[in-house]
Amino acid sequence: MSLVPHHDGSPLHVSAVAPALGGVVRVRLRVPSGYGPLTDVRTRSNPDHEPEWTRAERVGSADGWDWWEAPITVRNPRHGYRWMLRHEDGRIEWLNQAGLHDIETLDADDFALVAYPAPPAWMNDAVMYQVFPDRFARSAQADTHPTPGWAIAADWSDPVDATMPGRSQQFYGGDLPGIVEKLDHLVALGVNLLYLTPVFPAESNHRYDAASFDRIDPLLGGDEAYIRLVEAAHARGIRVIGDLTSNHSGDSHEWFRAAFGHPEAPEGEYYYFTDDAHTEYVSWLGYASLPKFDWSSEELRRRFITADDSVVAKWLKPPYNTDGWRIDVANMTGRLGAVDLNAEVRQLLRETMHRIDPESILLGESTNDAVSDLQGDGWHGAMTYPSFTRPLWGWLSEPTGASYRGPDGAETTEPWFFGQPIGGIPRYTARQFADAVTRFSAGIPWRVRLGNMQPLDSHDTGRFATHAAPGAVPVAAGLSMTMPGLPVVFAGDEFGAVGADGELSRTPMPWGTEDSPAVAERIALYRDLIGIRRAHPALQTGGLRWLHVDDETLVFVRESEQETVLVLATRGDADAAIAAGALPGATSARALYGDATLAVAADGAVLVSAEGPAFAVWALPGVVVPASAVPGSAGAEREQAEVSRGVVGADEVTPAEEVRGS
Amino acid sequence: MSLVPHHDGSPLHVSAVAPALGGVVRVRLRVPSGYGPLTDVRTRSNPDHEPEWTRAERVGSADGWDWWEAPITVRNPRHGYRWMLRHEDGRIEWLNQAGLHDIETLDADDFALVAYPAPPAWMNDAVMYQVFPDRFARSAQADTHPTPGWAIAADWSDPVDATMPGRSQQFYGGDLPGIVEKLDHLVALGVNLLYLTPVFPAESNHRYDAASFDRIDPLLGGDEAYIRLVEAAHARGIRVIGDLTSNHSGDSHEWFRAAFGHPEAPEGEYYYFTDDAHTEYVSWLGYASLPKFDWSSEELRRRFITADDSVVAKWLKPPYNTDGWRIDVANMTGRLGAVDLNAEVRQLLRETMHRIDPESILLGESTNDAVSDLQGDGWHGAMTYPSFTRPLWGWLSEPTGASYRGPDGAETTEPWFFGQPIGGIPRYTARQFADAVTRFSAGIPWRVRLGNMQPLDSHDTGRFATHAAPGAVPVAAGLSMTMPGLPVVFAGDEFGAVGADGELSRTPMPWGTEDSPAVAERIALYRDLIGIRRAHPALQTGGLRWLHVDDETLVFVRESEQETVLVLATRGDADAAIAAGALPGATSARALYGDATLAVAADGAVLVSAEGPAFAVWALPGVVVPASAVPGSAGAEREQAEVSRGVVGADEVTPAEEVRGS
Repeated sequence: MSLVPHHDGSPLHVSAVAPALGGVVRVRLRVPSGYGPLTDVRTRSNPDHEPEWTRAERVGSADGWDWWEAPITVRNPRHGYRWMLRHEDGRIEWLNQAGLHDIETLDADDFALVAYPAPPAWMNDAVMYQVFPDRFARSAQADTHPTPGWAIAADWSDPVDATMPGRSQQFYGGDLPGIVEKLDHLVALGVNLLYLTPVFPAESNHRYDAASFDRIDPLLGGDEAYIRLVEAAHARGIRVIGDLTSNHSGDSHEWFRAAFGHPEAPEGEYYYFTDDAHTEYVSWLGYASLPKFDWSSEELRRRFITADDSVVAKWLKPPYNTDGWRIDVANMTGRLGAVDLNAEVRQLLRETMHRIDPESILLGESTNDAVSDLQGDGWHGAMTYPSFTRPLWGWLSEPTGASYRGPDGAETTEPWFFGQPIGGIPRYTARQFADAVTRFSAGIPWRVRLGNMQPLDSHDTGRFATHAAPGAVPVAAGLSMTMPGLPVVFAGDEFGAVGADGELSRTPMPWGTEDSPAVAERIALYRDLIGIRRAHPALQTGGLRWLHVDDETLVFVRESEQETVLVLATRGDADAAIAAGALPGATSARALYGDATLAVAADGAVLVSAEGPAFAVWALPGVVVPASAVPGSAGAEREQAEVSRGVVGADEVTPAEEVRGS
Repeated sequence: MSLVPHHDGSPLHVSAVAPALGGVVRVRLRVPSGYGPLTDVRTRSNPDHEPEWTRAERVGSADGWDWWEAPITVRNPRHGYRWMLRHEDGRIEWLNQAGLHDIETLDADDFALVAYPAPPAWMNDAVMYQVFPDRFARSAQADTHPTPGWAIAADWSDPVDATMPGRSQQFYGGDLPGIVEKLDHLVALGVNLLYLTPVFPAESNHRYDAASFDRIDPLLGGDEAYIRLVEAAHARGIRVIGDLTSNHSGDSHEWFRAAFGHPEAPEGEYYYFTDDAHTEYVSWLGYASLPKFDWSSEELRRRFITADDSVVAKWLKPPYNTDGWRIDVANMTGRLGAVDLNAEVRQLLRETMHRIDPESILLGESTNDAVSDLQGDGWHGAMTYPSFTRPLWGWLSEPTGASYRGPDGAETTEPWFFGQPIGGIPRYTARQFADAVTRFSAGIPWRVRLGNMQPLDSHDTGRFATHAAPGAVPVAAGLSMTMPGLPVVFAGDEFGAVGADGELSRTPMPWGTEDSPAVAERIALYRDLIGIRRAHPALQTGGLRWLHVDDETLVFVRESEQETVLVLATRGDADAAIAAGALPGATSARALYGDATLAVAADGAVLVSAEGPAFAVWALPGVVVPASAVPGSAGAEREQAEVSRGVVGADEVTPAEEVRGS
């Protein structure tokens, strides 16, 4: 890869990642010395959908890079901008989140500053651990609960039953006290954010068909057990977020029971009843057990979100002290046919949570392209798969891997992949992986991208290890910990659990196998990778710059002023030549992880090589940044940016001096 | 170019271009015989932001193409979809409006059906002629009007004064009776849609600073002259649209006068006053003469749009009978900082106009990337430049061409280009032109794209002819008439008018020069090209398929069942080899325009060649389409599409059979 100009949303390049509306942010572009020469560099913003330009100044050079800096006044809560680079020969280049272009670019791919309240700082340092409560751990207390009528009791050692009715009714009886008993495992692993799939009462093992949002399922230990779990987690430095369904409730939900068949009930407006008797209604994808919420109801908004004792509020407050919410089916919430209230609902959720606890986080499930909903106004990040997880599977799985579960979770004769009837796992090269990451991230502001969950798998997908290419698990887990985004471990992955689809992946945790060599090795892998993630802030908030991409191998750096972290990920053998100048400080590289070789030539060119599959990490000195053009301005927002707006038709105005009547 | 699968939004490929919400549309994919083999072809929609799949059937083959067909139920007013193609070897390809992909694609680039009310059919056949009234024609009646106080009288032969105060005050005194006198020129040219820049009273020659929306400027002849103009135009088969500023009024506007300094006035809420005395206010880009409307005012919405006697309504109704509106600064309308009411305003405009006159059209000015606002809910199309006009200049201008007018229309020492400080006209190849067309069109539903204005220039830009490469005007004008979109002639272009920027382009029409050889030739060029556009419906609504793109040359077809129109556009010499099978019927090609050679080899390969610059058009037989898989279904929407929704997490449901409580 040739050395090209670089910018991203990280603190190296943006003076304020949490600017206020109206504030001035100084943005910086790095241009390889000798690139160009450039005769003009500007930013192009688009406030209120009309272009505005600021001129960049060259503020200095360091380590082979020329640095340009420009002020931008943040005029919209999501303020997009791009770079215009003019060469001496008149040639124009544009730089945006999709890369470098020789023709004009789309607004959607602009870099973007976000003036909505920022997520709490702790989110940057978070490594998430996802727990499916029925399958995690069963305390002695669980034996005191009778198996409910809807459930089919299973022994912890039973195989997962992926077909109906067992699929939703097979009941292992994991509970919250069971989780408390295993918190030391989380501590040992190094994770610090526990995500619980639903814990409200329901009539299924997954509990996404909530019967109430007002209490914790007694089968899990009830409210008291929840309070104790959160306390115990907090005492160990682990935060806890819950899982809410804003798209629907269960049909056994107390609101739905009140409304069903009772047209006079106030809860009737919470749902989309389609007949006068209120016995027919719209439900999630037609599943009658999951009646869909109608967010045009002000009363639903109040009761679910905005009231002091709303569902959203209650669990964030003492004594429950939940640290945030993951919202189920966030992508469909408020959307039905000609109606789209999604933005209103997600903004209301965010505003309410910020008011109650500005340290809480809000993640939205959006399993496909999440760009439209991830502009910083609502979700701090998404549980989404096309920007990391799916292309990762494509690259690092065996091509024969396939899940034979299609629509409705039913078995099929043809292989599906993450809800797509595409014949199983697609075969991606490393280059296609990188292209997919770029494509599905280019439309998302950097700050929001950092909040996107980055799992190898979840309770809704097969387990990555099931079809992983030999030796590929460390590569996949390593990327999840080193790429920009929120790393997630789905409980059981660290035990090497397998499962071909989103049912079979819900394996009970194989407690007691920790000392078997294969499991111990896998646990150590996760512990080591999580340790590196948490010990190196550059992996949390540092910029991302690709150094080498070919069909087998990726090399990139995460960069900050304090440190540069170099990452190699390869499926086949790697032999990546990195141009002189692309990696200053390579001679001081310190290996942090993996079995690979880094060699620096006399001219500064770097050769990174390994026998694949391999994953390796090095620490290097931080990026040297020349002083700002405006002394003391970094991070400040005091000045007013000088702008020019050369709109077509700007000539159609009477100048301000000639205003009459004032 | 290799022969690849093709789909677009034209009637060849979509059974209903104006479907109803809930209706079923049958969509068709053409795959070159021998491509693949494909083992599975499906559509992937994303209703309510959750994927839905339908299976395509191979319905037959004709002329070297295999045709696949699938039903899609239109679930959202803008219903996106893409094609999934699975090869025998397991490889997956995706086809969307941006092209063919080997990795997953973005929702924004999907093909899209639009269930909002369709634009009137006449829009397809329209060729627009833009008139700037002060500069078009001056009737004898104009001599009876005293020059107003704000104006600087100019003789028709005076050069345009592009500097202040002449820029906005130089007054040539063209009027509406003058336009009536010249309507036969429009008829001879073949245009059938007259677009008038503002005709309301104002205090500038351009009249974008309206003093009222309630009457026609007496200097133009007043209301009676307007009625006579529309009648005379209609009598000649020419429709007339006006120009409204929804972003701002002039500061001499009666509403603003009522509000300014009068905090008690009801009109105060129409604007963004920033002080208690209502003497300070937000204005367009800071120009005090153009106070910005605050669309949160219900009363403004009523008075401007929704009331029976609103501004928007009044002029559509008898006796005025205007055929639609072009909305000035549509892109900024309703947007300010954290507020974005744009969608509400454009939808309200559209709904109101549809109610009053469903045959009226609504175009929005959006001079840069218009994708976000052009999803079919509001504007029927945009006055926009990056999807055609700017890349066209880039390709077909002299590289030395430059406009030295920057922000504020003021002269600068550095060259600007269409409001961009990029050093003048960029240098594009034909390939870059085509790439820009694709990039800025991929996010716009086909039906809306057909409404996008496609001018070479306007009153807001320099004249294309000013810097055109020798011989390039026929190529540019030809593309404007043959590419998908609404062709526009800015009055004067057909006389060969020049002008370096959006001030100097406002040249008084050089009436009387029609018989000079150069002018006669240019008028004939326009007449011929307009004639071809209007005589060949495939150029209006036919699909677009690229056959050849290189740095100098473009070859494409516009296709329908009735006819195929082949177009060659080249700046240098053209020698375009088109693969056998790409152009069935080439042996029957009939030249319609231009000096170029079309040769068909024995195997069906086609060679198109010309000495550049050249523009040429041929008519060929229409595309042969196999019968639909569902007899009689083409265009019908009777059936319910069978769909599968393989969502991640679909396994998390209790099946409908097990619903309790119902």
